[in-house]
Amino acid sequence: MKVEILQEKLKEGLGIVERVASKSLTLPILNNILVNAEKNFLNLAATDLEIGIKWWALAKIEKTGKITVPARVFSNFISFLPNKKVDLETIDTSLKISTENYTTQIKSFSADDFPIIPTLTEGEFISLENISFCQSLNQVVDIAIPSTARPEISGVYFLFQKDLIVMATTDSFRLGEKKIFIENPLDTKGYSFILPQKTAREIINIFGEKKGNLKIYFSPNQVMFEFLMAETPHPQLQLISRLIEGEYPNYQEIIPKKFETQLILPRNEFLNQIKLASLFSGKINEVKFKIDSKNQKVEIFSQNPELGEYQSNLGGKIKGQPLEISFNHRFLIDGLLNIKSSEVILELNGEGGPGVLKPVGDPSYIYVVMPIKAS
Amino acid sequence: MKVEILQEKLKEGLGIVERVASKSLTLPILNNILVNAEKNFLNLAATDLEIGIKWWALAKIEKTGKITVPARVFSNFISFLPNKKVDLETIDTSLKISTENYTTQIKSFSADDFPIIPTLTEGEFISLENISFCQSLNQVVDIAIPSTARPEISGVYFLFQKDLIVMATTDSFRLGEKKIFIENPLDTKGYSFILPQKTAREIINIFGEKKGNLKIYFSPNQVMFEFLMAETPHPQLQLISRLIEGEYPNYQEIIPKKFETQLILPRNEFLNQIKLASLFSGKINEVKFKIDSKNQKVEIFSQNPELGEYQSNLGGKIKGQPLEISFNHRFLIDGLLNIKSSEVILELNGEGGPGVLKPVGDPSYIYVVMPIKAS
Repeated sequence: MKVEILQEKLKEGLGIVERVASKSLTLPILNNILVNAEKNFLNLAATDLEIGIKWWALAKIEKTGKITVPARVFSNFISFLPNKKVDLETIDTSLKISTENYTTQIKSFSADDFPIIPTLTEGEFISLENISFCQSLNQVVDIAIPSTARPEISGVYFLFQKDLIVMATTDSFRLGEKKIFIENPLDTKGYSFILPQKTAREIINIFGEKKGNLKIYFSPNQVMFEFLMAETPHPQLQLISRLIEGEYPNYQEIIPKKFETQLILPRNEFLNQIKLASLFSGKINEVKFKIDSKNQKVEIFSQNPELGEYQSNLGGKIKGQPLEISFNHRFLIDGLLNIKSSEVILELNGEGGPGVLKPVGDPSYIYVVMPIKAS
Repeated sequence: MKVEILQEKLKEGLGIVERVASKSLTLPILNNILVNAEKNFLNLAATDLEIGIKWWALAKIEKTGKITVPARVFSNFISFLPNKKVDLETIDTSLKISTENYTTQIKSFSADDFPIIPTLTEGEFISLENISFCQSLNQVVDIAIPSTARPEISGVYFLFQKDLIVMATTDSFRLGEKKIFIENPLDTKGYSFILPQKTAREIINIFGEKKGNLKIYFSPNQVMFEFLMAETPHPQLQLISRLIEGEYPNYQEIIPKKFETQLILPRNEFLNQIKLASLFSGKINEVKFKIDSKNQKVEIFSQNPELGEYQSNLGGKIKGQPLEISFNHRFLIDGLLNIKSSEVILELNGEGGPGVLKPVGDPSYIYVVMPIKAS
């Protein structure tokens, strides 16, 4: 293998694939990056056996070939180099890196030892605008929690329909659901799967700021996200992930269809008052709300026998039944942080029923949260 | 006590004194801030028994008095409030905080339980420009290390002379010395002391970006740093610290008076090549330098049996004996980071003698570093 490539380009690729290279002690080969000089392209790949990633860039390939290089030292070394031409060359089982003033040999391994990363370019796929897809995913991804007892809720549920993509997550105390409406109906017979939370986070990290289109390829056990190069039809990035087995709970059942009390509140002020109240809440994070529909205001209370007590008032548009209700402040804060509109809707169903948070003027997002029941 | 003050002002003061309030489990009173409404001024104070800090701001004092308030919850609460008027009032042993829409009562303690923080406004003092003093201190502070065996080198040595302030630190492998030349000779008979590293860091954090003058008051066991308000002669901040007992080593002896080899090197490129070499150095952080005075260049090497090897070249102005020498890369990097000039001088005295790093064109700073002796 002998390749010439610009430092900046190589650094970008290493920064992406290095994220996936694992820190496995039992399978040290996974701490490496597969460097593959193909015709016209330098390809870097890494996997932790759950996620596999491949990156390509145009490069001057003097001799094709491949080698497996320790990820951390390779990526660190390249990141410190000046942005000039870098030569990569295999010398026995080392990778020789040279620039004008620098020469390095990194001890490496045969490419034969590196696991094969599958690809999924056949079968059904859909194509989506990158950034808004990642922003949507970001509104639900953090609600899922790792759960060995119920692995099916440890990921993000995806449902692809003709003109709609639905993403949902829950930790059984709260639920987030985001819909992406598709203008050009998809050519799909409908698909659903549960994506591991770690994969979803990597997708946001890797694709979240790249302008372009993401192709999503489906199969029963795996899903692949592909990003194309601007200039050529050659892929620039492929991320393939296993899926979580199991049936996602029928969460639609717990989304209330009506409400007894509805509040429309200024989002920033509401968020700030809950943060202030949180400083005085006790071990179960309880913050109390006294909703006064007659005077169009909410009183917010918290009390901690060791620290003291808190009380504040918030005006808003309130209709329906007056109510006293308690929430875990962390759950409300998480929901409000996923909403960016200047006003939010909070719909309640008595002191024991689920509450619903929604942005004003955006039907695509809903956040359901269970209250803390009065003891 | 009853006080009215702007949120922004109070937040600033709490941010400063809270740094010193300790997280002591054995003396929980030290986790508090003493809030003292004096005539015209609100005073906040905290101590960890090594450092004491007092802060003042003009405020509308409706009733003088004092109370001891838990630092963290008080500071967090105030920092979340909008920048409007805040009323502070003692209600029994609670501090009531109220603004337009918020009311809080924080459980507090009697001010009688709070330790007395001494002051030092009598006796000798000197007055210095704040920011350059902190920048100078910053060039040496990190070299000292906590040492119970040799507590005298765990702090920053200060020597005040008629027209000169000297600060020095060492960890016995390297030494930093910074001189501040005083244009208007000081009215002092000469003073020296060892300041705890923690105090030095707090001074940099607290005073490093405040434009103004710092007064330093001396006593045999304590030192006080005072910052005045712009408008009035009233102090805005006082930080008093214990000193470290013991005799500082006569470090002047180890600063070489001459050299066998002298290099003048571009600082950024030198730093970058050492960083690159550090990736391939072994457990003792060894990086080798082969100084070729004939060809006016340095070759930099490192080698790690597990990772691989590194080699680079750096051109410079070199005079004196050719030499092969090894240094701990971390020590060289630390020294170079304390120097901001575009070129640095490195003076060497054989493979076993101390090396000296200095900025070009600035005689006020010197960094001495011991090489790794060939085994």
